[in-house]
This record gives sequence, structure tokens and C-alpha cells, in this order.
Amino acid sequence: MIEPRTLKGFRDHLPAQALARERILDVARRVYRSYGFAPIDTPALEYLDVLTGKGSEETDKQMYRFTDHGGREVGMRFDLTVPFARFAAQHVHELGLPFKRYHMATVWRGENTQRGRYREFMQCDFDTIGTTSPVADLEMVLVVHDLLAAIGVGGFTIRLNDRRVLAGVLARLGLADRAATVLRSLDKLGKATAEAVAAELTAHGIGRPAIDALLEMAALGGPAEAVLGRLEGLVGDVEAGRQGVEALGRIVQGAAAAGIAEARFTIDPSIARGLDYYTGIVLESFLDDLPALGSVCSGGRYDNLAGLYTKQPLPGVGASLGIDRLLAGLEELGRLEAVETPAQVFLVNFDAARLDDYLRIAAALRAGGLAVEFFPEPKRVGQQLKLAAKRGFPAALILGGDEFAAGTAQFKNMLTEASTVIDWHGDHRVLVDAVRALTEATRRG
Amino acid sequence: MIEPRTLKGFRDHLPAQALARERILDVARRVYRSYGFAPIDTPALEYLDVLTGKGSEETDKQMYRFTDHGGREVGMRFDLTVPFARFAAQHVHELGLPFKRYHMATVWRGENTQRGRYREFMQCDFDTIGTTSPVADLEMVLVVHDLLAAIGVGGFTIRLNDRRVLAGVLARLGLADRAATVLRSLDKLGKATAEAVAAELTAHGIGRPAIDALLEMAALGGPAEAVLGRLEGLVGDVEAGRQGVEALGRIVQGAAAAGIAEARFTIDPSIARGLDYYTGIVLESFLDDLPALGSVCSGGRYDNLAGLYTKQPLPGVGASLGIDRLLAGLEELGRLEAVETPAQVFLVNFDAARLDDYLRIAAALRAGGLAVEFFPEPKRVGQQLKLAAKRGFPAALILGGDEFAAGTAQFKNMLTEASTVIDWHGDHRVLVDAVRALTEATRRG
Repeated sequence: MIEPRTLKGFRDHLPAQALARERILDVARRVYRSYGFAPIDTPALEYLDVLTGKGSEETDKQMYRFTDHGGREVGMRFDLTVPFARFAAQHVHELGLPFKRYHMATVWRGENTQRGRYREFMQCDFDTIGTTSPVADLEMVLVVHDLLAAIGVGGFTIRLNDRRVLAGVLARLGLADRAATVLRSLDKLGKATAEAVAAELTAHGIGRPAIDALLEMAALGGPAEAVLGRLEGLVGDVEAGRQGVEALGRIVQGAAAAGIAEARFTIDPSIARGLDYYTGIVLESFLDDLPALGSVCSGGRYDNLAGLYTKQPLPGVGASLGIDRLLAGLEELGRLEAVETPAQVFLVNFDAARLDDYLRIAAALRAGGLAVEFFPEPKRVGQQLKLAAKRGFPAALILGGDEFAAGTAQFKNMLTEASTVIDWHGDHRVLVDAVRALTEATRRG
Repeated sequence: MIEPRTLKGFRDHLPAQALARERILDVARRVYRSYGFAPIDTPALEYLDVLTGKGSEETDKQMYRFTDHGGREVGMRFDLTVPFARFAAQHVHELGLPFKRYHMATVWRGENTQRGRYREFMQCDFDTIGTTSPVADLEMVLVVHDLLAAIGVGGFTIRLNDRRVLAGVLARLGLADRAATVLRSLDKLGKATAEAVAAELTAHGIGRPAIDALLEMAALGGPAEAVLGRLEGLVGDVEAGRQGVEALGRIVQGAAAAGIAEARFTIDPSIARGLDYYTGIVLESFLDDLPALGSVCSGGRYDNLAGLYTKQPLPGVGASLGIDRLLAGLEELGRLEAVETPAQVFLVNFDAARLDDYLRIAAALRAGGLAVEFFPEPKRVGQQLKLAAKRGFPAALILGGDEFAAGTAQFKNMLTEASTVIDWHGDHRVLVDAVRALTEATRRG
């Protein structure tokens, strides 16, 4: 006998979790599509040189890699960005530019499994490549907004910045060549106190006036107009910095035109998001009820996606929904339905001799748009209803000999345990309409 | 520079292919759910001993396997049945029985890449475990029917058999202990002639009268009632055989009760589907316009799913949609839309100064349920429309200074190139309703 078990850092998704994930993937697909992003897919396995070209030392170390049957060195993808870069370089002439894609797929990282991190998880990326238009930047922000609103995460805040603002402020402070050091320290704000960060910057030989300006910048908050005004002052005449402030202003204006509430946005000059990749706007987003969860959707603009694979420059902008983190957050907030079935109606199997009647009823309900589970065995009704309750069915439908004789059916609201008698006189349409209305009513409580 | 390329036997899915696949997955999800099948997921990587326990020598050889960072021997799943067996054994007490699941996921086999076979492909399985009820068998048939009907594959035929009928006929012919040999030969019918199969059986020492009976059985066709009558004669008094004939009769009757056309079914006594696994009903399904494609959805009943991992017997019944084979078939039949975008409306970017107006219009159209791609740069209209045509947008919407001034918009049917002027007078609701109606009309041709 082999012990049934999963590898450390890997997990099964039972129906409740799988249903919650499918629902979010479905919403993401719908929102991405509503802006014209098209799906793509790439292989889980790639040539090792394709994957290691861009990765950091850390991802290289974490990558699952091996030699395949044909003696090729291969690796399992650790993100969707590197495969997309390879894909874009390979197919750009078929795709046409600008090109908008989404990609929702599993990635693997053999990393430390502490703190709820898994070695297998999903990413849901969307990107627009082949254009430097600020419209694409704005659209990324709108998609993130629509996505979080459609998922129904409760209140959320999108934090925006532009890497050029950071660059401008650093240039103005004479720290242009210390960017990596400074940003690494500033990145600790939130986890560490301002004093601790200041001490670290001092240790790096940064002067006190510069530290004060940096901490002032990082602490800016409140209405976008006011923050942008202060940033204008901080970047002074530095051209890149002015471009960054302008770009942020355009986003604020465009989002308003698209009808998005101001409360959903904050300009947050402390956001940098990695040191090498992003070159323009950057974005993070947080649940208002659980900010400690970290950003659930992050992204930004980059200058060149696929420089390792093609000479054709492919600038782009995009973001990634951290679906596993978001699911963990929604679970912590008690916002996930504890339901183990995708069906609405549990049809009790009361009388084996009535099989054909049950089949006709189930077929009619399905044709009417209801998902129906028909219990396969004529077991005790109590036992059937117990399973239906465990699985979270909102409704059960019971028909025995008496009901068939009288042309009725018993509808049971599984949440309130209330029963309703439906008079349908053998007319399936009457039954379907009644069951649909009663089932919808269970949702409204 | 790294050459952008995929591994032999692996492939990218560009938008047209990815859209076609997503559509079918979506239909499958909807149909599976309509019967109460719930989604699950399992890891791509499993302990090697979990995967090799059940596999044949062939799948063992084809499996991608390696030693992970922790020194564990691991393998990539080569089907969804073995992981489901492990999953069911591990979680049966949480799940409750009977349990109905679907699982749509990627599997990997390092097999020969001839004949359009890939080393990475998707499977879409559904199974009911924990019951021996014939209702579950019938439901499998109904699901396969609804699935192929909902996908819109054109005409199709579900071929049904029961392994017990085969066993009964063999027992009656005194060949019960030669089952493997006989079935392996009969399995060649269709590819080989009846004479060739008869010669092979003769070479195995089977007598002529038995061969004639076997070939008669395998050739049976036509109305279900007639076939069942002949099979009754062929199985005689053998109990298992009679049970098999009865089971097939119940399916024919139940399918009729559920409203399924008789033409969709055939009893085909030549179907065996593997030698070790299935024990009751077996099913294959074929496109009427392309039977040579082979079965696109196959399955059957088995006695014990997870005997390698648990002592608890888990009988079940289920089938698997071969989505990659089906897509290849639909492409060959010209039944796949050659569309590279999920969006309906291409909104031309005519005038950079009107950005806010375009954003408002795009937001209104999206709120009205239309997917809209707004071109990010104010390039020449001809250039924009060329990209929209390449991508297969059914509709384009053009608004320049004149249109904004007059409160109109130009709607372009991209299929007929006909233009319609919409009078909307700045009222987004009027515009949205008109665009929706005109876009729907493009579909109807």
C-alpha cells in the first residue's frame, strides 16, 4: 500500500477552495477580456537557458530543473514574465503590435515553505506591449480597479507611483548613483520605523538633509492633487522627475473620466517595486480591511520586455493578480463562501421506481439554467439531506409517491430549513419557474 | 542573445488557439457543474512512488521525473486518474460519498511526437465515485451528450458497451481465460479487416465457430433494441453477460427519459477500452463528420479507483474529454472561428485631445456588457482598422471631432465593411444600446 500524500509545499484543492479559485479566475478572465486582452498559454517546461537568462540568482536557485529524456536541460517556469518575453520575441510578427495578453497559469518555485508560501501557485498576468502610450498605463490602472471591484474584495486602495519621480528626487539630491542603496532602504518603510531607515541611510553615508527629503517624500499622502504639488517641488527641474509627476497627474485625471472613485487611489511615492525592471508608473493594491496581507495586484511600466531574445525593443506595461494571496486574505476576512458544490438544487432520490420521472425533472431544471445534483441511490431522505447540507446546497427538491400523485413537489430552503409546496400538475415549466424563483430567494436570505 | 524557442513536443498557444480552448473549457465547466460535479485540483508534481504505482510500463517510461532540491524522487503527472486516486484515498473522509468531481488540467508525457502528439496536453475528466448505482452510469452518458451538444461539434455518436457483455460472450464460448488475447485482437477491428483479425485469432488457437460468434458480436449495429436482443442471445445464461445487457438497456431507457435523441447512441459490442481498468459500462464518442479522428470523449465504470492507496473500495464511473484532439478535429472541419480577440468593439483613437471622452465611452460600453479595445495611440485610422480586421473584431466605433460636435458616431461592421451613423446626442445609454444592437447584428450576418 502506497501512502497517499503530497510533496512538501504542494497542496490539493478540495472543492470549496477550487470553487473559490475558479470564481476569481472567471472574474479576472471577464475583466481582462472586457479591455481586449487576449489569452495565451506557454509550456510549463522550457529550455533552461531561456529561463535562466533573465532570472535573478534567487529564482535560478529555486527553479525546478532536470535533464529530459532527450538529454536537454529543462526547467519549470517560475513566473509568467520570462515565458512571455520569449513568446513575444518568437511570435511578434504574427501577433502585431500593440499586443495585449493575459496569461493565467501555474508556476513553480522550490522556495522555503515558511509563512504560507507554496512551491506551486498561480499567477494571473496581463500586459500591453509594443506601445509607450500613457493610455496603456492608465488602462492598467483601470483593469486593476475593475478586477478588484468585480471580485468583491470590499474596500481597496490602489497605490501609484512613477519610478521617474524617485529618479528625479534622487537626482535633485545628488544621489542618482546611489539609487539601489537608497531604494533598498526606503523599501523597508512600513516594516521598519522611519528612524531605523534614517539610521541605515546615515550608515550608507547619506547626509541628513537628503534623508529628511527622502523620508518626507516617502511619507506623502492624502489627496492626489496635494501630493502631486509637493512632488513637483521635490523633483524641481529634473526632466525625468517632471515627466513622472505629469504621468501620475494624467492617470488621476483619466481615472476620473472613466468614472472611478477618488478614494480608490493614492499617490504613494514610497513604492518602488524592484530595482531593475520597472521604469515608469508602478502600482500596488491593498485590501482596506487587511493591508498587512501586502499587495494583491502589482505591476508597472517597463522599457524592454524581451531584450534577451530579440533586438526589437518591446516596451510595455502590465500587472499581476496574486490570486493565492488574495484567496488567503478573503478567507481570513471570512469573505469566502464555504460551499463544496457548484450546483444549486439537490434532487432527492426518494423512489427508485420513479427514476425516469426524476431524470425528466432534472433535465428540465438544467435546461432552465439550474445546476442540479440528483442523488444516485434511493437512500433514506435524512441521509441524503445531510450530505446536501454538508456540501452547502441552497435548495433541495423532494418528490415521493404522494407528491407525484398530487402533482406537487416539496422545495426545501437548506439555509432556513423552511419547506414550500410547489403545485406543478406535471407541467415541467411551472416546476422549473417555481424552483428557480425559490432558489434565488434563498440567496437573498 | 538567446534564441527564443520551445522544446520539441511543446507549443505556445497564440490568442486564436487559446480562445478556442478557453471556450471549450468554459462549456465543459458549465456542463459538469450543471450535474453537480465539483472542481478539484492536484499538484503537477507528485512523489514518484505515488505516480508509478499504477502506471503501465509505457507511462512510467514516458514520465518526466527528477530529484528535487530536497533529494525527493518526483514526477510530473501523466494523467489525472492516478492523482485523483491518491486524492480520493487521502481526503475521502472530508469529501463524503458519493463524490462527484471534475478536473481540467495539464499533463505531461515524454512520448514520441509523431502524428500530432504533444508532450504537454490538457485533460478534462469527470467522475462519480463511491457508488455502484446505475444512475451514475447513466449520468456519465448524459454528461458526455450534453457536453458535445453544447460545444457544438455538429453530429456525433456515442458508442456504448458493457465489459460484462464481452465477458459473458467469452465465457459462453469457453474463452474466459483468453480474454486479454481476444480483446487485443478485436481491438484492431476498424484498423484491420475482419479477415485479418480472424487470422490472428486462429493463430492464437481460437476455433472457427468461436471466431465467427466474436466477429458477429463485434459487427452488431443498428437500433439499440435489436442489438440488445442479439446480445441477449450471445450471452445466454452467463450471469455477468445478462447484467451487462440489462445495464445497457437501462441506459437506453434513461437517456430517452432525459430527452436525448436516439440517433446520438449506438450499442457497439466491439468497444473494450483497455484491458485492466474498466469493469462495467464503457463509452466512446465520435464526430460524425470525422470519425477517423478517434474518440473525443471516453470513459466507463471501474470497480476500485484507489486500491493502491487505501483499503476502502472506491467504485466509480467517469469519462475524459480529449480537448486537444477535439480542437484538432474542429480545426480540420473548419469549425473554429479564426478570431484573435475576445473583444467585440474596437474603439478607434482618432483625436488625442478627446481622450477623456473616449474613456467615458469605453467605460459605458463595458458597463453595458460589451468588451472594448481602445487603441492606445492616435495613429492613422486606416492603420488602426487594419489591425482590428486582422484580429477579427466584428465591430469598430469611430468618433472624431465632427462626430463629437454632431453627437454622432460611426459604427463599422468589420465583416461587411458597412458603416452606420449612430445619433446619440451625448447620451451614453443611447450609444451603448445602439452599439450593442449593431454588434449583435454582425454575428447574425
